[in-house]
Amino acid sequence: MASIKDVAKHAGVSVTTVSRVLNNRGYIGKETRQKVEEAMKTLDYQPNQIARALLKNQSSVIGVIVPDLSHPFFAELINWIESTASRHHLKLLVCNSLQEAEKEANYITMLKQNRVDGIIMCSHSQEVEAYRNVGMPLVSFDRILSPTIPYVASDNFRGGEMATQHLIDQGCKKLLYISGPLDNDLLANRRGDAFQLKCMKSNVEWKILEGAHIKATFEDNWSYIDKEIGAYLEDYDGIFCSNDIMAYTLYMYATEKGIQVPEQVKIIGYDYHSFTRMLKQPLLTTIKQPIESMGKMLCHSLIEQIEGKSVKQVNNNVFDVELVKGETT
Amino acid sequence: MASIKDVAKHAGVSVTTVSRVLNNRGYIGKETRQKVEEAMKTLDYQPNQIARALLKNQSSVIGVIVPDLSHPFFAELINWIESTASRHHLKLLVCNSLQEAEKEANYITMLKQNRVDGIIMCSHSQEVEAYRNVGMPLVSFDRILSPTIPYVASDNFRGGEMATQHLIDQGCKKLLYISGPLDNDLLANRRGDAFQLKCMKSNVEWKILEGAHIKATFEDNWSYIDKEIGAYLEDYDGIFCSNDIMAYTLYMYATEKGIQVPEQVKIIGYDYHSFTRMLKQPLLTTIKQPIESMGKMLCHSLIEQIEGKSVKQVNNNVFDVELVKGETT
Repeated sequence: MASIKDVAKHAGVSVTTVSRVLNNRGYIGKETRQKVEEAMKTLDYQPNQIARALLKNQSSVIGVIVPDLSHPFFAELINWIESTASRHHLKLLVCNSLQEAEKEANYITMLKQNRVDGIIMCSHSQEVEAYRNVGMPLVSFDRILSPTIPYVASDNFRGGEMATQHLIDQGCKKLLYISGPLDNDLLANRRGDAFQLKCMKSNVEWKILEGAHIKATFEDNWSYIDKEIGAYLEDYDGIFCSNDIMAYTLYMYATEKGIQVPEQVKIIGYDYHSFTRMLKQPLLTTIKQPIESMGKMLCHSLIEQIEGKSVKQVNNNVFDVELVKGETT
Repeated sequence: MASIKDVAKHAGVSVTTVSRVLNNRGYIGKETRQKVEEAMKTLDYQPNQIARALLKNQSSVIGVIVPDLSHPFFAELINWIESTASRHHLKLLVCNSLQEAEKEANYITMLKQNRVDGIIMCSHSQEVEAYRNVGMPLVSFDRILSPTIPYVASDNFRGGEMATQHLIDQGCKKLLYISGPLDNDLLANRRGDAFQLKCMKSNVEWKILEGAHIKATFEDNWSYIDKEIGAYLEDYDGIFCSNDIMAYTLYMYATEKGIQVPEQVKIIGYDYHSFTRMLKQPLLTTIKQPIESMGKMLCHSLIEQIEGKSVKQVNNNVFDVELVKGETT
């Protein structure tokens, strides 16, 4: 690739002159400018953004760590983060943690060493402490890391409440919630808190099982249901699943076992990502997370920090969720 | 973030000494080394990979341009590219071209300016000429750009042949192929060539329509089918769709119009990405592209070029496809 020296040589001027043209600084005669610009065009000269990054101590790169790039939820979230970043002339480094603590830690180190301007953290396999010491602009998705690190989430408590209330409104008397992993204090766990509270207030029998993992495929979910949930299907008449893939698998499982949905058991999911929107058989009843708004806000929130706007106050952003009524309740 | 100067100051040594410890060069006393290492740990010093990139003229970053990050095919492809890149200590910059020629051109410029080590090109909205002048390691997905630029693809001709033969074997007499965009000479167009040839050889009536766009949603496909394909549904008994989302939409459309699938019309798709694998109602008959192998190979092929291994010979990689028999044929 052509360097600034090549351009100077080709135009028959000094490197300083080329640099002046590039940075629009100092007096340059019209003819000289033209010669330099023509040389740049001929040689396809591209200014070195790495040198610029080093000089300005700003890389214009942001890092995003997600558990699984191929998951419809994160694929869509990244899509919106990228489009927002691109509009702000920021580039996006993506990292696939596979929800492994070690990979995640290595990615954080790598992003630091590459002097990214900030990190959007959507994977949470570390203890909270690890993120507090990152020492650069950081925004967290769906987890509270510290009072000084902003987070973006949807209203998980309200989502849990809406899902539970909907099942009760549809006449369910005995409710099961299939939760995501409960070991890290993720905001998604508020769905289960709301479920429990709503059931108790409404005098409805309830139970919570942990089994809705974000990385699980249909087949993983199927064998989990077969082993752990199968027995409950005869007994419980309303099941709230913490993600749509689990809800869809459960629907297919119940149907195969001859259990009518929604007549014998009602099923509600969570997310409404591209898979669910595409799915027409059945139309899943679910709680819609505003993935577009959350993706855009994750990026905006990080940009605010990078530009040093929010030193006074940490802006957390919690978005409204919505009930999407389908055929499974 | 702590700089090398901060480390030197904290350890009470010179910057040169710290640099020697970092690069493991020159004689350093055991005690001094320990002091420096302790200072690094205390200050959480991270070596600046940007400075290193500038010095070595190698960024260890690769760029990937795709039409749509949220599309299940590309989300999965990127997932495998990233996991391979990560194993080779390469970072991944992702770019979402939205299949717009201008956005794509801007991304190429941006990636050049950021001195990425190479580009994986999965979006093809430019004339071939534009890619030939990129002037850095490049690998193309599903398009031949020049004899010196390697490409990775699956065997599109064989895929088209298998799909068409399968419909004929199932007794279809009049075949329709819903193709992707025909304007750029993409390798995916070989599917249509094979379809046409196979039909002619087998004395089967056939027609090709252009309408299966990668960015199209279920709703986009539905209104296209309603306007352009609806009339053919009574008349044709076998339809080959160039992607699974189109095949699924067509299945749903036919079902709603009271046309029995597969009794009255047989439908076969293409891709077998995460959406199709998840889908159980119906199980789509489709041609499976080996997304994992292609994603990994895109990355390996680029690494080969970066390391200068394949100067003598361009290695193109064309992967086998597979018929997945479902319920729609």
